[in-house]
Amino acid sequence: MPKISDKGHSMPESPIRKLVPYAEAATKKGKKIYQLNIGQPDIKTPQVALDAVRNHNIEVLSYSHSAGFAEYRDKLAKYYTGKNIAVDGDDIIISTGGSEALMFAMGSIADTGDEIIIPEPFYANYNGFATASGVTIVPVESKIENNFALPPISEFEKLITPKTKAILICNPGNPTGYLYTQEEIKQLADVALKHDIFLVSDEVYREFTYDGAEHFSIMSLPELKNHAIMIDSVSKRYSMCGARIGCLVSKNKEVIQTAMKFAQARLSPPTFEQIASEAALDTPQSYFDEVIKEYTNRRNILIKGLNSIEGVKVAEPKGAFYCIAELPVESADDFARWLLEDFQLDNETIMVAPAAGFYSTPNTGLNQVRIAYVLKKENLERAIEILRAALKEYNK
Amino acid sequence: MPKISDKGHSMPESPIRKLVPYAEAATKKGKKIYQLNIGQPDIKTPQVALDAVRNHNIEVLSYSHSAGFAEYRDKLAKYYTGKNIAVDGDDIIISTGGSEALMFAMGSIADTGDEIIIPEPFYANYNGFATASGVTIVPVESKIENNFALPPISEFEKLITPKTKAILICNPGNPTGYLYTQEEIKQLADVALKHDIFLVSDEVYREFTYDGAEHFSIMSLPELKNHAIMIDSVSKRYSMCGARIGCLVSKNKEVIQTAMKFAQARLSPPTFEQIASEAALDTPQSYFDEVIKEYTNRRNILIKGLNSIEGVKVAEPKGAFYCIAELPVESADDFARWLLEDFQLDNETIMVAPAAGFYSTPNTGLNQVRIAYVLKKENLERAIEILRAALKEYNK
Repeated sequence: MPKISDKGHSMPESPIRKLVPYAEAATKKGKKIYQLNIGQPDIKTPQVALDAVRNHNIEVLSYSHSAGFAEYRDKLAKYYTGKNIAVDGDDIIISTGGSEALMFAMGSIADTGDEIIIPEPFYANYNGFATASGVTIVPVESKIENNFALPPISEFEKLITPKTKAILICNPGNPTGYLYTQEEIKQLADVALKHDIFLVSDEVYREFTYDGAEHFSIMSLPELKNHAIMIDSVSKRYSMCGARIGCLVSKNKEVIQTAMKFAQARLSPPTFEQIASEAALDTPQSYFDEVIKEYTNRRNILIKGLNSIEGVKVAEPKGAFYCIAELPVESADDFARWLLEDFQLDNETIMVAPAAGFYSTPNTGLNQVRIAYVLKKENLERAIEILRAALKEYNK
Repeated sequence: MPKISDKGHSMPESPIRKLVPYAEAATKKGKKIYQLNIGQPDIKTPQVALDAVRNHNIEVLSYSHSAGFAEYRDKLAKYYTGKNIAVDGDDIIISTGGSEALMFAMGSIADTGDEIIIPEPFYANYNGFATASGVTIVPVESKIENNFALPPISEFEKLITPKTKAILICNPGNPTGYLYTQEEIKQLADVALKHDIFLVSDEVYREFTYDGAEHFSIMSLPELKNHAIMIDSVSKRYSMCGARIGCLVSKNKEVIQTAMKFAQARLSPPTFEQIASEAALDTPQSYFDEVIKEYTNRRNILIKGLNSIEGVKVAEPKGAFYCIAELPVESADDFARWLLEDFQLDNETIMVAPAAGFYSTPNTGLNQVRIAYVLKKENLERAIEILRAALKEYNK
């Protein structure tokens, strides 16, 4: 039997997806599952994007430019400029999802054994991208007690070695929902400049901020011109997760030239999905206003609901559509599987993502889960009732 | 200034795409360019695929399964079974282009510094995927004199070390057009089994075989069950290069489980393009019959035309839609750039891919180019006249 690679063995299973087989088995048995495990919103995709695809007049579905359609990049640059992110189309490479943009970034700035510092808990698939790229993630713990705010900058500096190539943040944070303040971003910028390393910011949830809080991008700091790499995606902004269209943005020409070599190797991003994404830029503001109102409402229901369950502790999210909740269980992993396999309330159950996979430090977050508030009000309310009943039964 | 990675520096520029800026400049000056450099057919995409996208009824463009739609995989398995490749939907992972499938395969079977043996010349982007994955390509030279047939198996065996994880072939070959015989495939299978390494076969041109020759897949050998990994794509088969839909196929469960972890990290392949690809499976046989007739005709015109130019030597392709031609020039690289920058025949020129980038051995194939016969008859004939005139002027 030929051997699988060590890399293959150490590729982490996605904590978001690894329970899928149990969910499939439960569904087959007729159990209804409320999916709080994955950031798949039920929000409708903007009509303008869906129509653009419906009205396509393609006869030969050909490769696009390796950096994506020039028209799309230019239009996207205008959108960013309106968000106080002054970039040109040439500063953008369209990728297949934010995932690919992150892979391009890691490949362009880090070699096997190099280190990237990331505040944890962080988006679990960073572990997968790092393993695939041979990069070592060095975590800095952020704490539920502080709502997962930026850890003291001194904690980052302690970890910087000659192998450190970048600090990577997700802002607003998945899975924490934390929105970095302008002051925190400036602290990160200072440390990146001081040590001459990159600051990579995954800003795919930029539009999802609540309570009047405003997102501040690393791209808005002119002094960070050569050190900033932004990762973005249409997945959440337009509820177009299936499009797999994202981008890498940087004013550093060498970064763009290097990432382009990775982009050229895979030829181009998907065409129909670029058509949809370009059209989505014409989505009216009213769409976002409604969506934000809806998510604010969902967040309020979820946080209030979770706080009403005995033994549950939750960090208040200011952005994105996730929260980390600490549960009165020893192993959230076991509990999450049990929810699918053994529990039901009137033949319904919930699916959550065990949070340990969002930490890089072993044995951390074992009693935490990530909950996405991507379902409508009634379903969230029902999900909370299921969780309440489940914890009671599980802890009997 | 923060540093780019060594990996980033050593990522090869795509020989297919690196001349694009020169082509863009020439186009801006109003020069017409016949593109023989890239495998972008002018053949129409099957109507059934285009219509499926036009008639979509999606409201929320959501993630699909990380392995791709189950229905698509099952339907695809039936298609393969009809081609003497007996697989189930579970043996298939839908990828974003054949490119991603190759990255999944490399990551699953090889670690940094591991070796994969490939007959050269080979598809240039294998170099990029290998660099991105930290894998070392070990080339075995195949020769234009033999039409790029499989080099003697002893040449492979000489190169096998404890670091060798696989032999990778492209069948029919890009850029050679060579179609491996059943006997050659069996020889490769024997050596893979003997040394317990993988045999990876990129079969994206499977349908494009000429003169009645039949494609023989590595997946048709039951003894290779645990050692065979097939890479495929819809790009060429249905003239759907922009779809970026491919797949990894293997009966080795451990390979599939490992590749799935890479697939889960990037969440899912694009949705609209999967809809198009699934529908494309209903393309009537008459479409392929016409396409093969067309390509046979184009190949005949191109090969005859090239042979009629003094000093040009060409290998006769039996499959795919490329050929490697040796030109009476010292540097095909210089000549290809000159064609775009300095040459014109009635304000028209051609774009070819210098072949050196398809070799891994340095300073090999310097006087060769890859020519894709993806243009219609009249354009190919015109392209040959331009090449004839250009060589005359260049060698003056």
